[in-house]
Amino acid sequence: MSNLNWTRKHIVDIESLSVEEILTIMETTDSFFNLLQQPVSKVPLLEGKVVLLLFYENSTRTSCSFELAAKNLGAEVVKISVATSAVKKGETLADTVDNLVAMGTDAVVIRHSASGIHHQLIRALRKEITVMNAGDGNHEHPSQALLDFHTMRRYLGDIKDKKITIAGDILHSRVARSNIHLLNKFGADVHVVGPSTLLPMGIEEMGVTRHYCLDEAIKDSDLIMMLRIQLERQKGGIFPSIGEYNKLWGLTDLKIKKNAKPGCYIMHPGPMNRGVEIASDVADNPEYSIILDQVTSGVAVRMALLSLTLTGGGLVHEHAA
Amino acid sequence: MSNLNWTRKHIVDIESLSVEEILTIMETTDSFFNLLQQPVSKVPLLEGKVVLLLFYENSTRTSCSFELAAKNLGAEVVKISVATSAVKKGETLADTVDNLVAMGTDAVVIRHSASGIHHQLIRALRKEITVMNAGDGNHEHPSQALLDFHTMRRYLGDIKDKKITIAGDILHSRVARSNIHLLNKFGADVHVVGPSTLLPMGIEEMGVTRHYCLDEAIKDSDLIMMLRIQLERQKGGIFPSIGEYNKLWGLTDLKIKKNAKPGCYIMHPGPMNRGVEIASDVADNPEYSIILDQVTSGVAVRMALLSLTLTGGGLVHEHAA
Amino acid sequence: MSNLNWTRKHIVDIESLSVEEILTIMETTDSFFNLLQQPVSKVPLLEGKVVLLLFYENSTRTSCSFELAAKNLGAEVVKISVATSAVKKGETLADTVDNLVAMGTDAVVIRHSASGIHHQLIRALRKEITVMNAGDGNHEHPSQALLDFHTMRRYLGDIKDKKITIAGDILHSRVARSNIHLLNKFGADVHVVGPSTLLPMGIEEMGVTRHYCLDEAIKDSDLIMMLRIQLERQKGGIFPSIGEYNKLWGLTDLKIKKNAKPGCYIMHPGPMNRGVEIASDVADNPEYSIILDQVTSGVAVRMALLSLTLTGGGLVHEHAA
Repeated sequence: MSNLNWTRKHIVDIESLSVEEILTIMETTDSFFNLLQQPVSKVPLLEGKVVLLLFYENSTRTSCSFELAAKNLGAEVVKISVATSAVKKGETLADTVDNLVAMGTDAVVIRHSASGIHHQLIRALRKEITVMNAGDGNHEHPSQALLDFHTMRRYLGDIKDKKITIAGDILHSRVARSNIHLLNKFGADVHVVGPSTLLPMGIEEMGVTRHYCLDEAIKDSDLIMMLRIQLERQKGGIFPSIGEYNKLWGLTDLKIKKNAKPGCYIMHPGPMNRGVEIASDVADNPEYSIILDQVTSGVAVRMALLSLTLTGGGLVHEHAA
Repeated sequence: MSNLNWTRKHIVDIESLSVEEILTIMETTDSFFNLLQQPVSKVPLLEGKVVLLLFYENSTRTSCSFELAAKNLGAEVVKISVATSAVKKGETLADTVDNLVAMGTDAVVIRHSASGIHHQLIRALRKEITVMNAGDGNHEHPSQALLDFHTMRRYLGDIKDKKITIAGDILHSRVARSNIHLLNKFGADVHVVGPSTLLPMGIEEMGVTRHYCLDEAIKDSDLIMMLRIQLERQKGGIFPSIGEYNKLWGLTDLKIKKNAKPGCYIMHPGPMNRGVEIASDVADNPEYSIILDQVTSGVAVRMALLSLTLTGGGLVHEHAA
Repeated sequence: MSNLNWTRKHIVDIESLSVEEILTIMETTDSFFNLLQQPVSKVPLLEGKVVLLLFYENSTRTSCSFELAAKNLGAEVVKISVATSAVKKGETLADTVDNLVAMGTDAVVIRHSASGIHHQLIRALRKEITVMNAGDGNHEHPSQALLDFHTMRRYLGDIKDKKITIAGDILHSRVARSNIHLLNKFGADVHVVGPSTLLPMGIEEMGVTRHYCLDEAIKDSDLIMMLRIQLERQKGGIFPSIGEYNKLWGLTDLKIKKNAKPGCYIMHPGPMNRGVEIASDVADNPEYSIILDQVTSGVAVRMALLSLTLTGGGLVHEHAA
């Protein structure tokens, strides 16, 4: 365990996390990851705590992952489906959360379409509780970047100077943004590629190399992170057709074999559009696809984040206590 | 603890509760309220019981509050989202509940748009289980009135002869109706005020004083309870515009300072329309706003109601047993 | 307990279950059914397991029944509401489930509109977990047939040569299909009746007798199983009006008294359309209606299915272990 004394109460973005904090999260995640391999993977670190899931955008995997993480730690979980909530009644987010805090909530995990809303919320809350960002607009998705990092470390070890390529819809991707911040902090050589309509202007200022051709971008890559393309973007004229997108930006086994470094790994945050941004012969290839490993790391990372923010420690800390 | 032997199985309305029953609920609530201030606030009084939440109208706070109350008592909670339920398939409510009882449900908490439906349901059920009204049409919302009463007692002590003003949409408010019944039972001096289109004809027969002007109604009040205005009522021609409503019926710090008694408290059942029926300088004023206190009392009151109806006792009873 | 060594991991249909397997399920159900009559009906056979409910079609009773069954066994339950899920994002079902398995899910209970999808899914999953069919299109609904069988055995004993009539919309009913397979395995004399538009061509090849008149079909029946008619079928021209359907195919006390065997029992899988396929004087008749018994058997059957597929045994097995 690193020697950092954990004090942070919220996980809102990767940008503001220090290298040492991220390493503490990784070490804490390691112990939970190992626990998850055991037949009994529950540990009552958050017994008596209430974790609220407040998702204003659809989610299966992130919501389930946080739910299982909290339950594995013995917390009570309350899920609020927003379509059937007071939110529709015009209440402010801070009023909604203040109310849930007054009922006994200890942490709230929020996905929301408004970028930056978690910072605002933390300032507005009457009583401080843990606020966790499960995705805010096109801004950040910190637990996703942390789980991606955990998986990368398992397969690549130290990522310093490793060439990591992120491909697809960079513009709308909070996953890409959080990953770029994190990879930069650890000295990776980050490349991005996608249709020019989906690459933000000035992306190079984030410290990445920009490409306009997939083959070129993945050349000598140690790891390729494919992003989901939202098919409804086609209607907005962002790309001419799904077939076109697939031809130019879809990753296939052939393209990998031809251009990437031997031993290159493939990641995808899901949900995948098979046959669009990723071919099934890539997604299901046991040789290099580590997509389901990401999912397992996800539960462990979220256990670490909840445990650190709510108790200041992880599994080791508790066992030592 | 009062000497009343608790026998009531259902909480359907305030009207039929006796003063002694309400006092027993208050005393039972007190002990749970104190428990909720402790680091561990769970007590396994309802271990092995199943509490069903059946909400036919949107709800965040009431639904969450009952969920946390039941979980704090160790009950298993099953939430049924009505949009995805057999209810849509034309089944009667009694058939739905009879089925859930046959599966092992011990108590059902129901919010429904039909006034009086809980009484009907209790008569129709094949096997008696606890039925709890979480709001029925414009009729009653008993747990809300009980939590309001708990908060009032904390701040005002005995409410006898205290001037309590309820302001806003009295006509459509089950909260107002339940509160008027309760306040009358305890001898408060109850005043109501709102647009004449939102004050029911003959409201005086409920034993309240009616006003047509907010300033006049809050004059010398010990406590003002603001009601939510449903913004969609404007379309029905009930009031000319939101600005108009705010100007005439919105509570501001200025109006309070000018007219109410010094030390007057402000309540609101939520969700609030800030800038409509209540200004932010009122809602957030630590001097007199006790709105979040209501929410905390809410969990304690619902623990008391579930515990009393399902076990005949509360925390003290159990610990003595 | 039968001597069968339980090895089956999935419950997908009745057709492929052996007589001996069904008898083992019945015996295991019996012990859970008895347990459910006790004040404390929880038994921690699935402590630490995660059971996922994935319902792509509306359900109250089947979903709640599986939820309570899993919780009675101490499992953690995760319910996914599909309207708010990644499924809408175009992900394949196998990818969705693979993800949830990577998060730690041990069993998945799926209702889906596509007939046969569970078989496909089992072949596609990366890692084998228990897959349970909670209804697939017009194909099968095995846990419903098993609970029906459990109730029949409680009231009729051995069903060999008993005349059992299934009445109504046979064509669209997975309940009918699963029941016919099961009843045939145990030598019942199965009769079906309904509008000719709702009786599949060649239904006799399933080993049942077909009728075109309700009075004739129920003559000398030991048990009549009414099926729900979906009222929206009227629009498709399947029957001329609800009144017409009720007159010809609705079961009344009079028709039973006139034609069925004295002591004949009535079942219905729910949700019922009172006054359409079944009169209230039938549904609520304590003399012969065993509709709520079916519901209680449902929880016990699902406890047996989860326990057998996840642990290879039931209550007795566990206690002996």
